[in-house]
Amino acid sequence: MPSISDKGRAMPPSPIRKLVPYAEEAKRKGRKVYHLNIGQPDIPTPDVALNAIRNIDLKVIEYSHSAGNESYRRKLAGFYHKLGIDIDYTDILITTGGSEAVTFALMTCINPGDEVITSEPFYANYNGFAVAAGIKIVPVTSYIENDFALPPIEELEKKITPRTKGIIVCNPNNPTGYLYSKEELFHLRDIVKKHDLYLFSDEAYREFCYDDAEHFSAMRLEGIEKNVVLVDSVSKRYSECGIRIGSLISRNKDVISTALKFAQARLSPPGLGQIAAEASLETRIEYFRDVNAEYTARRNFMVDALNKMPGVFCPKPRGAFYAVARLPVDDSDKFARWLLEEFDYKNQTVMVAPASGFYSTPGLGRNEVRIAYVLKIDDLRNSMEILAEALKAYPGRV
Amino acid sequence: MPSISDKGRAMPPSPIRKLVPYAEEAKRKGRKVYHLNIGQPDIPTPDVALNAIRNIDLKVIEYSHSAGNESYRRKLAGFYHKLGIDIDYTDILITTGGSEAVTFALMTCINPGDEVITSEPFYANYNGFAVAAGIKIVPVTSYIENDFALPPIEELEKKITPRTKGIIVCNPNNPTGYLYSKEELFHLRDIVKKHDLYLFSDEAYREFCYDDAEHFSAMRLEGIEKNVVLVDSVSKRYSECGIRIGSLISRNKDVISTALKFAQARLSPPGLGQIAAEASLETRIEYFRDVNAEYTARRNFMVDALNKMPGVFCPKPRGAFYAVARLPVDDSDKFARWLLEEFDYKNQTVMVAPASGFYSTPGLGRNEVRIAYVLKIDDLRNSMEILAEALKAYPGRV
Repeated sequence: MPSISDKGRAMPPSPIRKLVPYAEEAKRKGRKVYHLNIGQPDIPTPDVALNAIRNIDLKVIEYSHSAGNESYRRKLAGFYHKLGIDIDYTDILITTGGSEAVTFALMTCINPGDEVITSEPFYANYNGFAVAAGIKIVPVTSYIENDFALPPIEELEKKITPRTKGIIVCNPNNPTGYLYSKEELFHLRDIVKKHDLYLFSDEAYREFCYDDAEHFSAMRLEGIEKNVVLVDSVSKRYSECGIRIGSLISRNKDVISTALKFAQARLSPPGLGQIAAEASLETRIEYFRDVNAEYTARRNFMVDALNKMPGVFCPKPRGAFYAVARLPVDDSDKFARWLLEEFDYKNQTVMVAPASGFYSTPGLGRNEVRIAYVLKIDDLRNSMEILAEALKAYPGRV
Repeated sequence: MPSISDKGRAMPPSPIRKLVPYAEEAKRKGRKVYHLNIGQPDIPTPDVALNAIRNIDLKVIEYSHSAGNESYRRKLAGFYHKLGIDIDYTDILITTGGSEAVTFALMTCINPGDEVITSEPFYANYNGFAVAAGIKIVPVTSYIENDFALPPIEELEKKITPRTKGIIVCNPNNPTGYLYSKEELFHLRDIVKKHDLYLFSDEAYREFCYDDAEHFSAMRLEGIEKNVVLVDSVSKRYSECGIRIGSLISRNKDVISTALKFAQARLSPPGLGQIAAEASLETRIEYFRDVNAEYTARRNFMVDALNKMPGVFCPKPRGAFYAVARLPVDDSDKFARWLLEEFDYKNQTVMVAPASGFYSTPGLGRNEVRIAYVLKIDDLRNSMEILAEALKAYPGRV
């Protein structure tokens, strides 16, 4: 039997999906499982998107342009203009989710063996994309005590070697919910400029900023226009994760023309998803207000509930819909599995994502979990009650 | 300005898409362009698929399982059973088109720097996927005089080195339309077994076999069950290229569990496309009969028309909807561009794919083009008339 590749063996299991078999088993036993592990919002997809799909008037579902439908790209350029991001539609490639945008960005810009710096904890799938591209992710640790703010600039610079070719920032951050300030982005700009690095900015959660905090896009940083590559997605913005539509955006024409060659090899991004995404641009402003109010309430409720549990600490994030909480447990991987395999409270349990998978420094995150507040307040209330009971009952409590 | 990666620079431009700007320019000049360059059929997508999309009853378009919806995978296993391919639904990963299936297969099975053999001319995008995965495609030449049959087994074996880890076969073949015989597949099985290689079988055109020829799937080869990785796609089968749904299938559990890690990193395949693909399985048998009759008629007309042109030779393929023709021209890249830039016949022209992009041995295919017979007979008739006139007028005729 021929062997599996080294890359295949090196691919990390997904920290948010590796426990799925245990959750399925718990459900088979008739147990209710609250999913706090995954960023799958319960927010309805806008009607304009669903109606566009229901009203498709096609005889043949053809390939689209490899860069995405021109009509969609033109409207999307208009969407960014309103955010103060001045780009042309030819600066945009439509991708199969933000995932493909990250992959194309890394393949286009970074050689195998070269390095990209990011603050940890970081979106775990960057590891997978890095393994696929053969590149190395170099972490600089951010700390829960400091709300997971950008590590000091000196810490970042210490990590720079001749092989460093870029920095990835996810803003607002998955998994921490941290929203980077304008000043932090200026610091990043200075490093990027000084060392002529790429700045990959993953802004999939841009629309989820709370407490009237303003999002400042890396695309608005002056003086590094050719260095910035924006990765975006409609998944969260319009609660349409399943359509798999994202984008890779850059004012660097070489980046776009090279990424287009990768895009041409896979022919085109999903056609039906593009129809939904284009229609979604007509979503009423009230939709976003309502969603924002809902998530603010959920966050407030959840973070308060967590911090009331003895031994638990959770900063109050200002973006996305995740929080990383410190729990009084020996090992959050064991705890998360125990929740599914051994524990129930009134025949219910919760599924959380152990934070270890979001760190690349071994040993970090062992007493932390990522929790997504993507459930209704009532469900979150139940979930927090279950979690509180679980922490009391867990044999590995510290 | 930071530099583009070596991979980015090595990515070949798509031979079927690189001339698109010239076609667009020709259209801007008011010229009618017949697209013989791309495998975009004009056959209607089955109504069952379109209706399933029009009738979606979802409030939230959620992520699907990373391996694809279980309901779809179970029905798809039933589809393969009817073809004599005995697999379980857990042997199937749903992918974003056949393209992603090829990428996952190569990343899962082949180390960077290792080699995969395929007969040339071959589907040009294999080059792109190979560059992305950092692997080397080693060609063994098949010849137009021999209908592009599988090269003799000795020629294949001559290419095997310690770095050879697999063979890719596309059956029926894109770009040649060649349908491999059972005996040829038995030869492949013997080599695969002897050297313990992977056999990647791309069967995206399985449903397009003519003259009552039978398709024999690599999944039916006995004794190499753990070596075979099937790549499939619904794009051509149901004329729904734009939904981007394919599959990676193997009885080798290590291959599936490893490919699933790549699949988890990108979260899920397109959700709306999966709904269309699942519904497509209910397509009436008459649909395929009609489509087969239509393509047979188109092929017969086109191949006859080509062979009547002085200096042109085109074998009569028994599968897919492509043919590679030898033309009396100095350089088919120049000729294809000249057709768009300089030539018109009654204000019309044709777009063809130069065959050089389908070979990796430099210099081969320079007097060949790939022609897709994806247009109605009337359009094909016009196209062949235009091509005949063009060959008379072309200054580089030899």
